[in-house]
Amino acid sequence: MKKKVVLAYSGGLDTSYCAVYLSRELGLEVHTVIVNSGGFSPEELAAIEKRAYELGSTTHEVIDVTERFYHECVRYLIFGNILKNDTYPLSVSAERMFQSLAIAEYARSTGAEYISHGSTGAGNDQVRFDVAFAVIAPNTEIITPIRDLKLSRQQEIEYLQQQGFEMSWEKAKYSINVGIWGTSVGGVETLTSRQALPESAYPTQLTQTEPTNVEITFEKGEPVALNGEQMDPVVLIQKLNDLAGQYAIGRDTHVGDTILGIKGRVGFEAPAPLILLKGHHLLEKHTSSRWQQLHKDYVANWYGTLLHEAQYLDPVMRDFEAFLESSQERVSGTVFVTLKPYQFELQGIESKYDMMQSKVATYGEENNAWDSRDARGFIKIFSNQLRIHSSFNE
Amino acid sequence: MKKKVVLAYSGGLDTSYCAVYLSRELGLEVHTVIVNSGGFSPEELAAIEKRAYELGSTTHEVIDVTERFYHECVRYLIFGNILKNDTYPLSVSAERMFQSLAIAEYARSTGAEYISHGSTGAGNDQVRFDVAFAVIAPNTEIITPIRDLKLSRQQEIEYLQQQGFEMSWEKAKYSINVGIWGTSVGGVETLTSRQALPESAYPTQLTQTEPTNVEITFEKGEPVALNGEQMDPVVLIQKLNDLAGQYAIGRDTHVGDTILGIKGRVGFEAPAPLILLKGHHLLEKHTSSRWQQLHKDYVANWYGTLLHEAQYLDPVMRDFEAFLESSQERVSGTVFVTLKPYQFELQGIESKYDMMQSKVATYGEENNAWDSRDARGFIKIFSNQLRIHSSFNE
Amino acid sequence: MKKKVVLAYSGGLDTSYCAVYLSRELGLEVHTVIVNSGGFSPEELAAIEKRAYELGSTTHEVIDVTERFYHECVRYLIFGNILKNDTYPLSVSAERMFQSLAIAEYARSTGAEYISHGSTGAGNDQVRFDVAFAVIAPNTEIITPIRDLKLSRQQEIEYLQQQGFEMSWEKAKYSINVGIWGTSVGGVETLTSRQALPESAYPTQLTQTEPTNVEITFEKGEPVALNGEQMDPVVLIQKLNDLAGQYAIGRDTHVGDTILGIKGRVGFEAPAPLILLKGHHLLEKHTSSRWQQLHKDYVANWYGTLLHEAQYLDPVMRDFEAFLESSQERVSGTVFVTLKPYQFELQGIESKYDMMQSKVATYGEENNAWDSRDARGFIKIFSNQLRIHSSFNE
Amino acid sequence: MKKKVVLAYSGGLDTSYCAVYLSRELGLEVHTVIVNSGGFSPEELAAIEKRAYELGSTTHEVIDVTERFYHECVRYLIFGNILKNDTYPLSVSAERMFQSLAIAEYARSTGAEYISHGSTGAGNDQVRFDVAFAVIAPNTEIITPIRDLKLSRQQEIEYLQQQGFEMSWEKAKYSINVGIWGTSVGGVETLTSRQALPESAYPTQLTQTEPTNVEITFEKGEPVALNGEQMDPVVLIQKLNDLAGQYAIGRDTHVGDTILGIKGRVGFEAPAPLILLKGHHLLEKHTSSRWQQLHKDYVANWYGTLLHEAQYLDPVMRDFEAFLESSQERVSGTVFVTLKPYQFELQGIESKYDMMQSKVATYGEENNAWDSRDARGFIKIFSNQLRIHSSFNE
Repeated sequence: MKKKVVLAYSGGLDTSYCAVYLSRELGLEVHTVIVNSGGFSPEELAAIEKRAYELGSTTHEVIDVTERFYHECVRYLIFGNILKNDTYPLSVSAERMFQSLAIAEYARSTGAEYISHGSTGAGNDQVRFDVAFAVIAPNTEIITPIRDLKLSRQQEIEYLQQQGFEMSWEKAKYSINVGIWGTSVGGVETLTSRQALPESAYPTQLTQTEPTNVEITFEKGEPVALNGEQMDPVVLIQKLNDLAGQYAIGRDTHVGDTILGIKGRVGFEAPAPLILLKGHHLLEKHTSSRWQQLHKDYVANWYGTLLHEAQYLDPVMRDFEAFLESSQERVSGTVFVTLKPYQFELQGIESKYDMMQSKVATYGEENNAWDSRDARGFIKIFSNQLRIHSSFNE
Repeated sequence: MKKKVVLAYSGGLDTSYCAVYLSRELGLEVHTVIVNSGGFSPEELAAIEKRAYELGSTTHEVIDVTERFYHECVRYLIFGNILKNDTYPLSVSAERMFQSLAIAEYARSTGAEYISHGSTGAGNDQVRFDVAFAVIAPNTEIITPIRDLKLSRQQEIEYLQQQGFEMSWEKAKYSINVGIWGTSVGGVETLTSRQALPESAYPTQLTQTEPTNVEITFEKGEPVALNGEQMDPVVLIQKLNDLAGQYAIGRDTHVGDTILGIKGRVGFEAPAPLILLKGHHLLEKHTSSRWQQLHKDYVANWYGTLLHEAQYLDPVMRDFEAFLESSQERVSGTVFVTLKPYQFELQGIESKYDMMQSKVATYGEENNAWDSRDARGFIKIFSNQLRIHSSFNE
Repeated sequence: MKKKVVLAYSGGLDTSYCAVYLSRELGLEVHTVIVNSGGFSPEELAAIEKRAYELGSTTHEVIDVTERFYHECVRYLIFGNILKNDTYPLSVSAERMFQSLAIAEYARSTGAEYISHGSTGAGNDQVRFDVAFAVIAPNTEIITPIRDLKLSRQQEIEYLQQQGFEMSWEKAKYSINVGIWGTSVGGVETLTSRQALPESAYPTQLTQTEPTNVEITFEKGEPVALNGEQMDPVVLIQKLNDLAGQYAIGRDTHVGDTILGIKGRVGFEAPAPLILLKGHHLLEKHTSSRWQQLHKDYVANWYGTLLHEAQYLDPVMRDFEAFLESSQERVSGTVFVTLKPYQFELQGIESKYDMMQSKVATYGEENNAWDSRDARGFIKIFSNQLRIHSSFNE
Repeated sequence: MKKKVVLAYSGGLDTSYCAVYLSRELGLEVHTVIVNSGGFSPEELAAIEKRAYELGSTTHEVIDVTERFYHECVRYLIFGNILKNDTYPLSVSAERMFQSLAIAEYARSTGAEYISHGSTGAGNDQVRFDVAFAVIAPNTEIITPIRDLKLSRQQEIEYLQQQGFEMSWEKAKYSINVGIWGTSVGGVETLTSRQALPESAYPTQLTQTEPTNVEITFEKGEPVALNGEQMDPVVLIQKLNDLAGQYAIGRDTHVGDTILGIKGRVGFEAPAPLILLKGHHLLEKHTSSRWQQLHKDYVANWYGTLLHEAQYLDPVMRDFEAFLESSQERVSGTVFVTLKPYQFELQGIESKYDMMQSKVATYGEENNAWDSRDARGFIKIFSNQLRIHSSFNE
C-alpha cells in the first residue's frame, strides 16, 4: 500500500511539478490541499481542483480559513495598528502562517506519513511551512522537492511534458499573491533597491477620482459597520477593499529583514488594511490612556515582528493577544474617512468614550478643572528631579 | 533701582499685555526677548522689536536658535524617524523647548530677578517654560500674568487702551505657529473630535500639480545634499519645505496627550519633516540591522515622548542621543522621492552600505549563500523550542 | 445637620489629631475607617476602634481587604516576579493603594461629603490617597489637616490635651508598617545614604539557625500548597512569613524615586514575598518560553513601576494583568527551597511542563534531536546578517 | 605544501584529539592557540603549551584578552548591572565570545586556510565559535571533528593511543571553566531540574567566617579603587574575587535558554561580579534619574541577552554600549559592603552626585521645596487622565 503525502497545492508550476514528482518518483499517494484565506474566487478554486486531479491527485481538499484568519490573527493586527516597519500590513506573512497551520492540521488528521510544500530555500515561506508542520504534525516527514532539487522553470516544464502533462505555463511578469489582508506584488523592480513598481504592476487600477466619504464603526476595536450598516468584519474588509481599491489606495513597497537574515523587498496593495489600521489608531488616540498607547506600541511591534518571523505558535503570542484584547475595552465609535485618488484623509471620530470630550476637563483656552495655582504646584513638583539633577552642575 | 524681568515676547496681544502689566503694575524693568527657531522673517522680527520698544521695553533681544535647534534636537528626531503617535513630527513641542531654554539662559546671564511668559494654565507650553526656567535659572522667580489673571482678549485690549496703547489686535481665525520643523494650525475645528481643518486653514496652499523628482542625500543620518547639491541641513530643510510646500504635502491633524493629562488636537503642515523622516527611514531599512531597527523603535518612541513632555533636560535624553547617534554609522546614501499633490512617493535608495545588495547573499530565487540542507538544519533548530513547548499538549 | 467626613484612621497621633480637628474645628460628623491588608491583629484592631470612639467618632468601620489585595494585586506581583529596582517587593506601596481604594469606595457608598487622610505633603502616600479619592469618589472633597497645617508632634499632642484627650503618644524609634506582603522600617539610618539599619531595628529577629527544607507548589503561577498541604494563598503567605521570619530572611534597604521626584530610602523585611518571587521565577525559567521571559520582564517592570506610582487605576494596568495571567498557563509545579539564617537556597523544581526535561530534546552531551549538519546549517543562516553587515568593512 | 589550520586548543582530551586528527587524518599543518581571559595561571599555560608541541603542533600561541575583555565587554556588563534572567553574570558566555574573536583574528592574520574548534553540536559554544569565525575570517573554512564525528571519550583515548600518545586523561567529576568574570560548574546535578550542586562541587571553599567591610570606589561606572587603593579594574576584580571567594559568596545555579532553543542549567561561582554588579546598582539608584533607571533596564536586558546569544558583533551592540556609557556620567562614588559567609550586605554609599542628599529637596518629614498647596495642585493634575477615564464609568 502506498504511503500518503499531503501537498500544499496552488495550481502553479512549482507545486504541479511536486504533485507529479511525489507520485511518480517517490511512489506516494498524493493528496492535494489548497487553503483559501480570502484571495481565491470559486472559479479559481475550481480550476485549481481540476488541474490537481489531472495531475493524478487522489483527493483534493479546499480549506477556507478566512474567518479563522480574521478571528485569530487579523483582529489583533487591527488592535495593534500593526504595520511592519511602519509600512507593511503583514499581508502575506500572516496569511501564509494560517495556510501552513491548516495544512499541518489536515495532514495530522488524515494520518499522512509525509507533507510537502513547493517553497524554495531562499525565503520566509519555507520557514512558515516547516515550522507549522514540525510543531503541529511532528511525526510527519517534510518533503520539499523545489528547495532540494533547485530546478529551473524550463526543467520543470520539460519534466511535466515527459510525464505527459502538456499544460501551458506562462510566466507572469509580476508574482501576485492575493489575500483578504492585502495583495503582494513582486517583480524585476523589487529585486533592486532603487526602483519602484510601475503603476501597471498593481492588479487594482485607479478607476474613481471623485472623493467619497466613508464611516467605519468599531466595537471594542473590531470593525463592525460600514456607512452605518452592520456586517461581519470579514465582509466589511472585502467591501472596503473593493471600494477603496478604486482609488488605488494603500500601495507601497516594503523592505524588510527575512527570517534568514537577508533583506527582501516587496510591493503591495492593501486598501482596506491601511484605512482600518489608521482609522482604528485615530479612535484609540481619543479613547485610550497615554500609558496604554505607549505600551501598546511595544506589544504591537513585537507581535507583528514575531508573527512575521514564523513565531505565531510561541506562547508569548497568546500573552500579547490577551494584552491587546484587554486594551480594546473602550475602542468603540465611528471614524470618518474621505477616499481620494491614491490617498485617504481621516476627518475625525465620534465615541462615547472620547476622552477629549469629557465633562471633567476640556482642551482649549477655557478650563475649569484646575487653576493657575494647581498648575504652578504641578510643574514645581514635576520638575523636582530635573532641578535636583541640575543642582550638581554648579 | 527697578528689578529686572526678562519677558518671552512674541508681539501678540497676550505678551504685549504682559509687557505693560509687568512694567506699570509690578514696577519692573522689562527686557523683552524673542527666540527664532526658523519661523520668523527679518521683517516680522523688526516689526516685533518695534512694538516691544513702543510698549516700553528697556531692551529687546532676538536670539536665533535655528542651528542649535537642528544640532541638539532635530537631527535626533531624524535619526529616530520620530513621529509622535505615528503622526506628528513634534514641530511645536520641540521648538518651544529650545525657545524656553534660550530665554532661561538669557535671564540667567543677565542676572534678571524675574522671568515671565504669556502662556495660559491650560496647555503644554507653560510646562516647557516653567521647567526650563526652574532648572536653568533656579534663582529667578517666574511671573505668569496670563495664567494667573485669566483675562479675556477684550479685557486685555481695554487695559492696553487705558494705558495709552492704541494698537490693532485682530484675532486670526486660526492660531498659527511657524518653525523650521513644521507649522501648527489650531482653530474651531481642532476643538472638536469630528471635524478636520478646511483646506483654507493651512498657510501654504497647493500651487504645483506636476510631479517632481527629488534626491536627498544623507550622511550618517543627516541630510546633507538636495538633488546632488551639498548644503547645510538647516538650509536643506528650508529649501525642501519651500519645494514640497507647493504640493501641500505633509498636512495632518494630531490628537495627543498633553502633559496635564487631557487630550488635545492640532493641525499641522510639515512638508520637509515628513519627507526627510520617511526617506531616512527607508534608507535605514536598507542599511541597519534587524536588531537596530527593533530597538531604535523603542528608543525613538521614548525620546519623542519625553521631548514632548518637557523632559528634554533629563539625563536619559543624552543617553538616548548617544544610542541614536551610534545607530547612524552607516545610514549614508541617497533617497529618491517623487513629489505629487498632497503626497510623495519613495522610489528607492542607493547606498554603499545597502545590505540588500551585498556580495554575501542576495534576495530572490537564486541564492548561493546557503543550500537546501542548511535551510533544513536552520529551521529544525529554529523550531526546537516551539516543538518542545508543543510536546506537552499531547 | 452636620456634614459627614470619612477619615482614614490608623490609631496613631496624626490621624487621632485629625479626628478631633475635623469634629471640633470643622464641625463635621467623623466616621473613622481602618483598612486591614493583613498587618493588624484582632487585638490591635480592637484597640484602635476603642480609641476612635473615645475621640468622638460617630461610627468606626474595619474593612478587611487582604483577600482582595491578594487577588487583585499580589498575585500579579508574583506572576511578574516583581521587585522594584530589583530590590523591593512593593510591600507598602501596593498595600496603601488598596487601602485608599477601600476608603474611597466606603466614602462613596455612605454618601459622605468629605474624606480625610493624615499623610504629610512630603511622600507618596498622599498621592495614593488623593488619586484614589479623586477617581473613585469624585464628588467628595478631600481634607488633609496634617499636610496643610504642618504641625509638630508636640503641637498635636498639646492640642489633643487642650481638647481633653490625655493619651500617651510615645514616638517609636523606628516607623514600622506591617502588611501581608512585607513590613517597612524607617528610622534615622534610612534618612542617610550611608548607613544600613541595625539588626535590632527589624521587628522579626533571628530565632532559628538549623536549615529547613520547604516545598512550595504553584498552580498557574499562584502558590497553592506548602510542603504538600493545599491552602489558600493568603494563608500560605502568612505561614511562610512566620516560618522564614525565624531565619531573618528577606531583609534589605531600598532606595527609590518617589512620585514627587525625590529619592527616598526604606528598610523592609519580607520573607515570604522574597521566597515566593524567587521560587516562582525559577519555575518560570523551566516552563516559559524564551520570548515569554524576555517580554514578561518589560511588562512586569512597568506594572511594578506604575503600581508604585499610584497609577493602579490606569486601564493599562488591566492590560498588563491580562498579559501576566495569560503567561502563567503552564507555570505549575513544585519548588524546593532550603531556609538558612539570613538567606535561602533554591534547590530545584519539578513540573510536568518542565521544558528542560522534554522528550523532544535534552541538554547535555548526548542529543539526537538534531545532528552536526543541522547545526552547521543553523549557524550559517543565523550568521547571515552579521556576515552581510561585516562584508562592507573590507 | 601543507595547508594551515588554526586550532582552538585547551589542553583537554577533545582538542588534543583534534590536534592529532587534523594533522594525521586531514594532512594539515596544525597551529594551536589558547586564549586566556583571566582563568589560566602561567603554570597551566606552560603545561598546555608543552602538550600542544608533544601532539605535533607546528606553532603554539597564547593570546591574553583579559584587558580587552574587560574594556570591550565586562565594563558594559557592570554599567548595565547585567545578570541574565536576574541570576547569571554571563561568565562563560561573554568570555567565550572574546576567545572566539581572538582566534578568528589570529587565523585571519596568519592566512590559515582552516580554523577548528572542539565543541560538540549540542550547545552554545559552537555557535559563538562558528559565528565569530564566519564573520571575522569569512574565507577560512571551519572544521569541527568533535561535532561531526560524535566519538566517545573512550574512542578518542584509543585513537590517541594508537597514534602513540600515551597521556593520562582522567575525567573530572565536574566540568569547570574559570574566567575573570566567574567560574562555571557543570555535573550530574545540573543535568537534572531538581538537584542543586553539592557544596564540594565548587572550586572555591568557605575559609573565612569573620565579617569584613569592603569599600569599592566607582568612577563613571567603573570600579577603580578597593578599600581606598586605586587599581586597574582587572586587578580589582581579581583581588575582590580572592577576598570574597573566602566567604563562598556569589554561588548559584542558572537555568536558561540556549541559542539552539533548548533549556540548559549550569552552576557558577562569581564573587566579585555579584558584589560589583549589586554595589554598582545601588550607586546608580542614588545618582541616576528615574527615567535612566527605567530605560537602562531595557537596554541592559537586551545587551545581556544578545551577548549571550552570540550577537556581540551586531551593530546594535555598539548602540547599546553608547547608551550605557552615556548613562554612567555621574555614577561615581564609594559603595560600602560587608562580606559574610555565603552572602554580602550593601551598607550604603557616598557620592557627590547623590540625588538623595541634594540642597534642592530632601526626603523625610521636613521639606521646604514645595508646600501643601503645590502638592494638591500636583496630584490634581497628575490624576486628570484617570479622572477623565473614570468619568465614563457612571
